[in-house]
Amino acid sequence: MNPKCDIALIGLAVMGQNLVLNMSDHGYRVAVYNRTVSKVDQFLNSSAKGKNNICGTYSIEELVNSLTSPRKIVLMVKAGEVVDNFINLLLPHLDEGDLIIDGGNSLFSDTTRRVEELASQGILFIGTGVSGGEEGARNGPSIMPGGNSEAWPLVKEIFQAISAKVDDGTPCCDWVGDGGSGHYVKMVHNGIEYGDLQMISEAYDLLYSGLKLNHDEMYTIFDEWNRGELDSYLIEITRDIMGYKEEDGKPLLTKILDRAGQKGSGKWTGINSLELGVPVTLISEAVYARSLSSLKEERLEASKILAGVERVVDGNREEIIEDLRQALYASKIVSYAQGYMLLREAAQEYNWHLNYGSIAQMWREGCIIRSVFLEKIKEAYEANSGLKNLLLDDFFASALKESQGGWRRTVGRAVAAGIPMPAISAALAFYDGYRSATLPANLIQAQRDYFGAHTYERTDRPAGQFFHTNWTGEGGDVASTTYEV
Amino acid sequence: MNPKCDIALIGLAVMGQNLVLNMSDHGYRVAVYNRTVSKVDQFLNSSAKGKNNICGTYSIEELVNSLTSPRKIVLMVKAGEVVDNFINLLLPHLDEGDLIIDGGNSLFSDTTRRVEELASQGILFIGTGVSGGEEGARNGPSIMPGGNSEAWPLVKEIFQAISAKVDDGTPCCDWVGDGGSGHYVKMVHNGIEYGDLQMISEAYDLLYSGLKLNHDEMYTIFDEWNRGELDSYLIEITRDIMGYKEEDGKPLLTKILDRAGQKGSGKWTGINSLELGVPVTLISEAVYARSLSSLKEERLEASKILAGVERVVDGNREEIIEDLRQALYASKIVSYAQGYMLLREAAQEYNWHLNYGSIAQMWREGCIIRSVFLEKIKEAYEANSGLKNLLLDDFFASALKESQGGWRRTVGRAVAAGIPMPAISAALAFYDGYRSATLPANLIQAQRDYFGAHTYERTDRPAGQFFHTNWTGEGGDVASTTYEV
Repeated sequence: MNPKCDIALIGLAVMGQNLVLNMSDHGYRVAVYNRTVSKVDQFLNSSAKGKNNICGTYSIEELVNSLTSPRKIVLMVKAGEVVDNFINLLLPHLDEGDLIIDGGNSLFSDTTRRVEELASQGILFIGTGVSGGEEGARNGPSIMPGGNSEAWPLVKEIFQAISAKVDDGTPCCDWVGDGGSGHYVKMVHNGIEYGDLQMISEAYDLLYSGLKLNHDEMYTIFDEWNRGELDSYLIEITRDIMGYKEEDGKPLLTKILDRAGQKGSGKWTGINSLELGVPVTLISEAVYARSLSSLKEERLEASKILAGVERVVDGNREEIIEDLRQALYASKIVSYAQGYMLLREAAQEYNWHLNYGSIAQMWREGCIIRSVFLEKIKEAYEANSGLKNLLLDDFFASALKESQGGWRRTVGRAVAAGIPMPAISAALAFYDGYRSATLPANLIQAQRDYFGAHTYERTDRPAGQFFHTNWTGEGGDVASTTYEV
Repeated sequence: MNPKCDIALIGLAVMGQNLVLNMSDHGYRVAVYNRTVSKVDQFLNSSAKGKNNICGTYSIEELVNSLTSPRKIVLMVKAGEVVDNFINLLLPHLDEGDLIIDGGNSLFSDTTRRVEELASQGILFIGTGVSGGEEGARNGPSIMPGGNSEAWPLVKEIFQAISAKVDDGTPCCDWVGDGGSGHYVKMVHNGIEYGDLQMISEAYDLLYSGLKLNHDEMYTIFDEWNRGELDSYLIEITRDIMGYKEEDGKPLLTKILDRAGQKGSGKWTGINSLELGVPVTLISEAVYARSLSSLKEERLEASKILAGVERVVDGNREEIIEDLRQALYASKIVSYAQGYMLLREAAQEYNWHLNYGSIAQMWREGCIIRSVFLEKIKEAYEANSGLKNLLLDDFFASALKESQGGWRRTVGRAVAAGIPMPAISAALAFYDGYRSATLPANLIQAQRDYFGAHTYERTDRPAGQFFHTNWTGEGGDVASTTYEV
């Protein structure tokens, strides 16, 4: 009889397979199972071949019986109902104190519910973000676990062993907090990823369709950018993508259809930001940009009907490119600041104690948004854990001061040349709004009071006192209280 | 004993009171009730004084007994639980075929649920949008009823009698459709209203803080704008607000705090657009702009820390103002086009049969967004009921062609002068994206395939065929199927 396994994993798609191989490399004995059971043997006969600490199992019962106690079972399955289904399949076979870990991209509120439901049955539950794509999962992902804090000691060693490490050896995995906070942090990570991808694609658009650069030239630019402030995984792979040619010698990129898919976590970030009233404008613009891209047929039709301008950016090429780099950098700062605003509000709303520096550290390596930049965010929160907004940190404030010129010129050029920059221009509008001591929202309050008696506050009276004006001299003086216009 | 009443209304806040007075003016006998019963007498002794077809009642039972059969009871109460509470209070007293009408700003999905629940108990239910603020409710609002279609004949006469009318006498009230479609259309109306208010406030910002115009000058500009393409209620009241001075001779507007409130329907529109994947960028930016405005303390602090530029717009004043007018007009076209894109997708998603021309007609008068512009929308859909997008209509396409120059110059000026225009610039970015036959989303697909094996479609193969490239030469060829990065 084989020795018992340290941990089990259900769901052998690419991420699941690679996590298993990663755990195996680190000396853990892993039981694996998949709903379509043939996948188990496929896996054992391909990438898991010869790894005798990976044990195939062919039923839930066999899987559960193969584990040491307390059992630790990782689900790497599709978010939603499938997770609940597997939990229900597992429950009859588990003992008090066993642990289920959901490593998929579950909605944080589902995780909060599952933590509570399972706690009442004596079962521990962790919902963890895992980021890094297939390569990260294989060689060291960023892992963001949250849930029942009693469960953390059971998997801390394994998770930190397989996770990515910062240069000094610190693992990109630490306990996030209660309930669904781990999945929440992963959701925001993914939202930020949507923003990063969109901003880079806007920069590419200006280089390619505005400046008419070829892919080799763009390869060089992204390569240079990757040596400076923008040094990051996503700039690096963008460089590689520019350099990737098919057998006919043509860049593969030119043959890829411009219709971006999405799986939901960007959308969730946008929805949650609207629910919590946090202006996460850049991520929502990035999500909408993907929706717009998917309307390919309509765009083709519109391109023949709607008037535009010549898509050419004139001027000194070096300056235009450097301005664009500044625009990208400044917009990225705004995007992360918005993401952290959302984390802060969520911590308040859901009663979590989040360590913002630690979150930056978890994203520093392993995950898709990993970058040198995150080190600066970590430093900002380490220097001042009560920092209200990332933009107010000295480093970022001065980075924005230096880059705002190029940023403004870039948006100006894009607007004049008809090159859409929804994310980069939204970031600039946010920046200009955020740094405005006064905004024209006084007019909105006046209008709302005019047509709906919604009342307003006054600058010459204490905030919290509300006034209504009978603007027309007609109508009543009744202020709107219960009814919403 | 008094004769029985034609209809009842519960909830005597400003909108409720004014709807009662409106019905009374049209000869209907109205029973009224309010949870805080003292409000009934207050109403009867103030604005309802001497109107003997308005009957106070002091309990639900008395209210119900005062009505002819089938009973028609309008709720003008706070959206949410309060509506359900009143429905539950009413139910024991109602007979089969009686009708409850929710005239508040309920979430459309709540209305869908209530229509179904009540239908199963033999009670008819309508959820209706009512727009026009207190003045509209008093003199003729826009009314957007949907729900149980059997109920429509019972209130059609009353609703169309009290509603606003277009010049030719057509009422701004017609049956919208099944379930929560009436409240949905009202939600989109309110979302569009958020957008209109935000765009106007951005224009005001450029005039006031960019061009340094005074309120009398701005009065003149809005007055002129109100005579042309922008002719609308909101431009009209903006003009009036510019002209409104307090006893000290100073414009009241300068004393109103720049912190905009919100009650939820803009947020709902944004959330729903993200859920349905429709790029309603302008409304979401408008919602976020209100959230940002509410961070007054943080903005004050940021204004001292973050670098900006001198908030001055130089050049020929007349040209700048005309460009701004074009920017406002073009952005408005985009915003309404986005709103109609959402309606179209919702009709598909929720299986409603919406008449887009009729919706424009309902918004033509009475409601907050009423304008000459809506006549053009009505005409566009009357000419082509299958119109895919408002932007593709001849009139709007050519309006955009004429105004895009001023629009681009305006956004360029705002960006250079540090004046935030989140809505107007989002509209331009959307326009430039929508009219792009190709977008840089091919890069996003390449990136997603690179790090997450998400696959992509190719321009040289039929859409719907998905490809995965092993970009690095390392890693596997396993495409991501069930797992979401």
